[in-house]
Amino acid sequence: MQILEIRTPKRVAFVPITSEVQSVVAEQGWRDGILTLYVPHTTAGITINENADPDVVRDIIYETNKLIPFEDGYQHMEGNSAAHIKSSVFGASATLIVENSRLIIGTWQGIFLGEFDGPRHRKLFLKFIPTP
Amino acid sequence: MQILEIRTPKRVAFVPITSEVQSVVAEQGWRDGILTLYVPHTTAGITINENADPDVVRDIIYETNKLIPFEDGYQHMEGNSAAHIKSSVFGASATLIVENSRLIIGTWQGIFLGEFDGPRHRKLFLKFIPTP
Amino acid sequence: MQILEIRTPKRVAFVPITSEVQSVVAEQGWRDGILTLYVPHTTAGITINENADPDVVRDIIYETNKLIPFEDGYQHMEGNSAAHIKSSVFGASATLIVENSRLIIGTWQGIFLGEFDGPRHRKLFLKFIPTP
Repeated sequence: MQILEIRTPKRVAFVPITSEVQSVVAEQGWRDGILTLYVPHTTAGITINENADPDVVRDIIYETNKLIPFEDGYQHMEGNSAAHIKSSVFGASATLIVENSRLIIGTWQGIFLGEFDGPRHRKLFLKFIPTP
Repeated sequence: MQILEIRTPKRVAFVPITSEVQSVVAEQGWRDGILTLYVPHTTAGITINENADPDVVRDIIYETNKLIPFEDGYQHMEGNSAAHIKSSVFGASATLIVENSRLIIGTWQGIFLGEFDGPRHRKLFLKFIPTP
Repeated sequence: MQILEIRTPKRVAFVPITSEVQSVVAEQGWRDGILTLYVPHTTAGITINENADPDVVRDIIYETNKLIPFEDGYQHMEGNSAAHIKSSVFGASATLIVENSRLIIGTWQGIFLGEFDGPRHRKLFLKFIPTP
């Protein structure tokens, strides 16, 4: 298992990590198989979406914050329940296909670490399973 | 990796693809392992839900359209921000168990490609990892 | 493939299953690889979130019930459309990393079976793929 360290810039952000993940794949010599990305945090997540126009990510954050407000009568004392809920909606992991040591993703797709209670230092676990 | 081509019928639709996926599993002789389904698009997704009563899928679309309206003060100029948001909520991939060359899914479960900005031609990537 | 049987206590609940899953990993002697958890039901799901303060799970249920009401003009005759929608939002599967026969999850993370139309008896499928 490999670990990436990611610094997130603010309370809610989608940090693009495609090139960092691709670099680990190349450095490790991972050729052909599936790659599991796993976020070991309960107020962060991982998602795949458009990385061309930054307004897309801005709109995802805008609408998510509207649907799951920071304050909404929650009981959890730490005050970050919205972040926990978003973590479960976006999910803690992603599965990617690797062929010829390259991530097989769509032309407009990028991988993002979703930060919902930042800014913080986050970890991302990468586990590769090769095809036999 | 195998690729399925899927034509979607309208703006928002859940297209049942269980039998197409099962056919690839059989044709490829995939016996025992896990199968990753991956959508290389940022305005589509994949989900597993009831395939018996079509009203279930209709209700999922109805409620999702209500929660994430087509127009809601988004900034992305292409006008399909709702589709991008839905893509992240449903997710770009699914992991399925295969045994004896059959998908191991529940009695009422079907696999659906979620179209959120159609009608279009979509691709679905299938990558199988066998148990040793 | 291994199967866990889980009894859910009420209509909507997140049942902690980390120790049950860890026990299967140990009993089966699964050492190093990835573990797919799969729920073969269309009104349940699986998620990873905080297992320290039970208020977190309570807040997730509270907010999810608010966003996706039990009654909302749905057409599906069984009256459990909200449960189907939640199942797709949380997802039917989770992928976990295993090393040295231990689940590699974050300090505050726990695995939960999400029940959205209980109480019921549910099944959870576990499929392990070892690294070669």
